[in-house]
Amino acid sequence: MTLKGRDIVSVFDFSRDEIEYLFKKAEELNDIRRGRTLNIATGKLAAITFFEPSTRTRLSFTMAMKRLGGDILDFGEVERTSIAKGETLADTIRMIDGYGVDLIVLRHPSEGASKLAAEVAEAPVINAGDGSREHPTQALLDLYTIWREYSCIDGLNVGVMGDLKYGRTPSSLSYALSMFSNVKVYYIAPKPLQIREEVLSRVKGKIEYLKCEDLREVIDKLDVLYVTRIQRERLPHPEDYEKLKGLYTVTPSSLKGCKDNLIVMHPLPRVTELSHEVDEMKHARYFQQAVNGMVIRAALIKEILGL
Amino acid sequence: MTLKGRDIVSVFDFSRDEIEYLFKKAEELNDIRRGRTLNIATGKLAAITFFEPSTRTRLSFTMAMKRLGGDILDFGEVERTSIAKGETLADTIRMIDGYGVDLIVLRHPSEGASKLAAEVAEAPVINAGDGSREHPTQALLDLYTIWREYSCIDGLNVGVMGDLKYGRTPSSLSYALSMFSNVKVYYIAPKPLQIREEVLSRVKGKIEYLKCEDLREVIDKLDVLYVTRIQRERLPHPEDYEKLKGLYTVTPSSLKGCKDNLIVMHPLPRVTELSHEVDEMKHARYFQQAVNGMVIRAALIKEILGL
Amino acid sequence: MTLKGRDIVSVFDFSRDEIEYLFKKAEELNDIRRGRTLNIATGKLAAITFFEPSTRTRLSFTMAMKRLGGDILDFGEVERTSIAKGETLADTIRMIDGYGVDLIVLRHPSEGASKLAAEVAEAPVINAGDGSREHPTQALLDLYTIWREYSCIDGLNVGVMGDLKYGRTPSSLSYALSMFSNVKVYYIAPKPLQIREEVLSRVKGKIEYLKCEDLREVIDKLDVLYVTRIQRERLPHPEDYEKLKGLYTVTPSSLKGCKDNLIVMHPLPRVTELSHEVDEMKHARYFQQAVNGMVIRAALIKEILGL
Repeated sequence: MTLKGRDIVSVFDFSRDEIEYLFKKAEELNDIRRGRTLNIATGKLAAITFFEPSTRTRLSFTMAMKRLGGDILDFGEVERTSIAKGETLADTIRMIDGYGVDLIVLRHPSEGASKLAAEVAEAPVINAGDGSREHPTQALLDLYTIWREYSCIDGLNVGVMGDLKYGRTPSSLSYALSMFSNVKVYYIAPKPLQIREEVLSRVKGKIEYLKCEDLREVIDKLDVLYVTRIQRERLPHPEDYEKLKGLYTVTPSSLKGCKDNLIVMHPLPRVTELSHEVDEMKHARYFQQAVNGMVIRAALIKEILGL
Repeated sequence: MTLKGRDIVSVFDFSRDEIEYLFKKAEELNDIRRGRTLNIATGKLAAITFFEPSTRTRLSFTMAMKRLGGDILDFGEVERTSIAKGETLADTIRMIDGYGVDLIVLRHPSEGASKLAAEVAEAPVINAGDGSREHPTQALLDLYTIWREYSCIDGLNVGVMGDLKYGRTPSSLSYALSMFSNVKVYYIAPKPLQIREEVLSRVKGKIEYLKCEDLREVIDKLDVLYVTRIQRERLPHPEDYEKLKGLYTVTPSSLKGCKDNLIVMHPLPRVTELSHEVDEMKHARYFQQAVNGMVIRAALIKEILGL
Repeated sequence: MTLKGRDIVSVFDFSRDEIEYLFKKAEELNDIRRGRTLNIATGKLAAITFFEPSTRTRLSFTMAMKRLGGDILDFGEVERTSIAKGETLADTIRMIDGYGVDLIVLRHPSEGASKLAAEVAEAPVINAGDGSREHPTQALLDLYTIWREYSCIDGLNVGVMGDLKYGRTPSSLSYALSMFSNVKVYYIAPKPLQIREEVLSRVKGKIEYLKCEDLREVIDKLDVLYVTRIQRERLPHPEDYEKLKGLYTVTPSSLKGCKDNLIVMHPLPRVTELSHEVDEMKHARYFQQAVNGMVIRAALIKEILGL
């Protein structure tokens, strides 16, 4: 099995076997998890090409590359760049690719940007989030966190809560879960922010799912609770926000009745939707999840570069 | 012949022999062109000191330094820096130089900034564009692209088109071409954006030149067509822009009647002045030109650092 | 004596012995001063986490890390980060720490930010300036510059001039000087910008001090004159600025009557409060001071990382 030279545009670019293969490869990178720098990517350069602000994803890829022993070429901020002068994405990618970078990590506000970049560039392209639909390495790190906990994904009950309509994470995670067997997903959201039909149509028949509006109805069934934020401005009636906020805030009391081994996840950054009191509970996994993101990205880079 | 320790403020800091020497040195860096990292600048640090936004020049120098095995110290953005607090350029350069960097690459909006920096700093300074007149490494990469094509510069017919008045590139290229023999330059531009007298007075007697307003009159004579952009706001009557735009846009049809081995160049980024249809033509050299920029800068850095 | 793993939140985190130990360690890093890169921090990564603009401190830490042979993880600008999304500092620090960086260098506008970060993070934290009170590595480099000149700090007369109320530097320097014996500090400032009582109460009985408004009264007594800037907007009556400006501007003539071996220091950047004519005088030490900052930070990093 090899991922060498592969573009990662969508989570569907992986087979289930490849995903599990990556998890095992990530486990072999425990030295990185412990803060050691390896020498396996010496002389390799990844272009970090972010056309949208991002802290976690950018630092995570950068750290992964540096801990492998490689380095990055930071494209810088959009406002500071020739994009501001009206250059097309294809021209920008062609330039960066022409410089001979070993890998292009791309974040872009437009859906399809990564696909375009992958077509133009000779170097492999990793989609670090484009448009509102896909963020494959986020899905990968989410699955990896679940897998580290349960040693498998099959048969789990996963609650996904918050803004399921506009967030990249819930759709990318749904796609990823659909590659496994007997997964049941509970979509917990206010009606106007429920998961889009377009997403459901792609996972129908692969996962079982149930939409609901109240965490309390399903909390006793969940193995995983994945929390995301609701943004006031995304609501059709922003004045409803205060009311909804309480309902979609996870606190120790909202976890009452949960399974003993439930894990709570969150892509971070969080604001009020996930109480700091939960940090002290044995269920909290979101900080480990961030660390896992760095490690699984390192594994992915290593495999794509064929190291 | 040695360039060790040399400041590069103007293209006139090079002799013709030195330019040709650099071309040969650049050819020896084909590993960099193929995306390999060398170990010849290990431990060397170049300060990338950009007081103006720039993508291509900044990435190109950064990439060159990293592919040589060295690293950079990124000065960051002007707004974020002590310049915003009113520090003089001399003080800033003295600070950076005091840290013991091996090289200072400077981009600045004011003419003469590089000269000042070179006087203040012990480390060699490379002008990466200052004011509207000089951008010596751009001239170098332009010449290098022509030289790679024709194995010489002497005797060629070069068309330079677009905004010749305000662009750095046309003047720097003119100065560079004036070091060679029997070069004929066609300045193709609307009258208000024609090349400045100040530039012509410096090249008079060294190159033959002709000003014209229409590419079609001279297309059959050109070995090189160098396209630059016309910015609406630079025109005395911006309402003339739409009319001029068509005349100064290069498309397959505007190349009709050209020599078989004509090459089309552009400093990039391009907007509408160079049609994407030209990309597929055998004449297109602008993407290679960008790559050549990285390679010739690597060669220059290597020679200046005496590696 | 070891500083391995130590957090540096305040200058009081050092004993006098440790400060003098660091000076000696810094002297051993003369290769860095001469622009050579060592290999003692290979594979080490310091997170440069700056929530406020800063050029000198940021470049100085970055350069120190790179000259030791290590590398940095640049957190980027605040506006570009998840802080803008409302993440708490504790969450941000926990994320960065989770990635396994070897060191966190933090600059933050809020007092106590470094203390909080040090509590949250497993990696050692260095305060690179927080709030208006503490900037321990600035104090360290200031002392180091004095120590390099006089081989001791005890018994010296130090004038501190300018905005003593709002600047971080005068208070941090005062605290640092209070660890030595028989130091006399002259606080030279307009009344509304005099040193705060809170600072004096912490140094009372440890240093002797005297407040005055006119440099000329004390210039003949000083071994060190430390100049800082007065900002117009900090004055209760900004219209007084022009009058005060002259009084608190150091020129060759305001140094008349000074001791032969007086040294003039300034944290830089300077604007008008320190004349460029002073640069040529034998008293000027501010550019060396900036270099010393890089070297002492390298020594501190080396010791904290236990290298």
